[in-house]
Amino acid sequence: MSSTREKRHKPRLIVHTGDGKGKSTAAFGMGLRSWAQGWNVGVYQFVKSGKWKVGEKLAYETLAKAHEDNGVGGSIFWYTLGEGFTWLRSNDHTDQQSLAQEGWDLVKKHLAEEKNRLYILDEFNHVLSRGWLDIDEVIDTLGRRTGNQNVVITGRKAPKKLIDVADLVTSMDKIKHPFDKGERGQAGIEW
Amino acid sequence: MSSTREKRHKPRLIVHTGDGKGKSTAAFGMGLRSWAQGWNVGVYQFVKSGKWKVGEKLAYETLAKAHEDNGVGGSIFWYTLGEGFTWLRSNDHTDQQSLAQEGWDLVKKHLAEEKNRLYILDEFNHVLSRGWLDIDEVIDTLGRRTGNQNVVITGRKAPKKLIDVADLVTSMDKIKHPFDKGERGQAGIEW
Repeated sequence: MSSTREKRHKPRLIVHTGDGKGKSTAAFGMGLRSWAQGWNVGVYQFVKSGKWKVGEKLAYETLAKAHEDNGVGGSIFWYTLGEGFTWLRSNDHTDQQSLAQEGWDLVKKHLAEEKNRLYILDEFNHVLSRGWLDIDEVIDTLGRRTGNQNVVITGRKAPKKLIDVADLVTSMDKIKHPFDKGERGQAGIEW
Repeated sequence: MSSTREKRHKPRLIVHTGDGKGKSTAAFGMGLRSWAQGWNVGVYQFVKSGKWKVGEKLAYETLAKAHEDNGVGGSIFWYTLGEGFTWLRSNDHTDQQSLAQEGWDLVKKHLAEEKNRLYILDEFNHVLSRGWLDIDEVIDTLGRRTGNQNVVITGRKAPKKLIDVADLVTSMDKIKHPFDKGERGQAGIEW
């Protein structure tokens, strides 16, 4: 029978999916809490998104600097996979697949080292749903992670196999969206 | 016919509702983008939640300090309504209603002054769904707000009247939650 302490510290596998807004945004919001606890937080961007999450990145860099300078909060490491490559311009799935594999190999290395206490695998569902990685190997690796390592995976179309093994799954569902009315995204809100 | 610039700058009324996680968390994630644009961000906590969002608050304080010290990002103002009062202990709805009114009066004052460019009205749906404020007056005030003021309202049970006038509505829906298995919340993840 596990103690209260053990229950409280059970590391989580969290999935944010659905066709609505807020999947990544809520993951980055969750990262604020992990940072505030003094945890190491790792962000792994698996898909080049519209504006590369410039706002979140500036905020996270600022929080990481506050940790370095004043010891407040924890460390933050931000990895943009395939940066410098022609990710979005390439229509060659082999390239995207090898970048995805490279990114996942980095995550696996860090999990083995117990580098972080929170991993944000941003848009990783996209990679999984495209079949660019072996889903069984991914789930096996996540399931065998040691220590106190929490993982949050975002993106549409989370595979059922992932949902089955996750601890917490939330679907962000679109009720109404201004783009439906032909409005455009704006700095400060969408990026 | 509005120009592209005008379209891009149309201020948004955003609602995060549903029974899942991530409603407030995504709002605080959105605040990172607004802060990064140099906007004034105002947080108005309408309901005393479990741990008072201590992690988000520390992160926001750190970002606000970075703005003051180094000019990066924007200002952040954080208002915890009813702080010092016995909000949760009180079962007297009149007290909660008067605190809600006090909080809303503060938001109205700031909207009239165009104090912020993003308003996070955290758990305001709770206040509205309880009927503690006049929903028609709230909607009228929000609809007549001037300038470039974006508002995001979080909480379960968003009233239909609010959804009808909102620009962007997302429902965070629970697919799976560890508390269902009897697990407890933990620092760094839930607060």
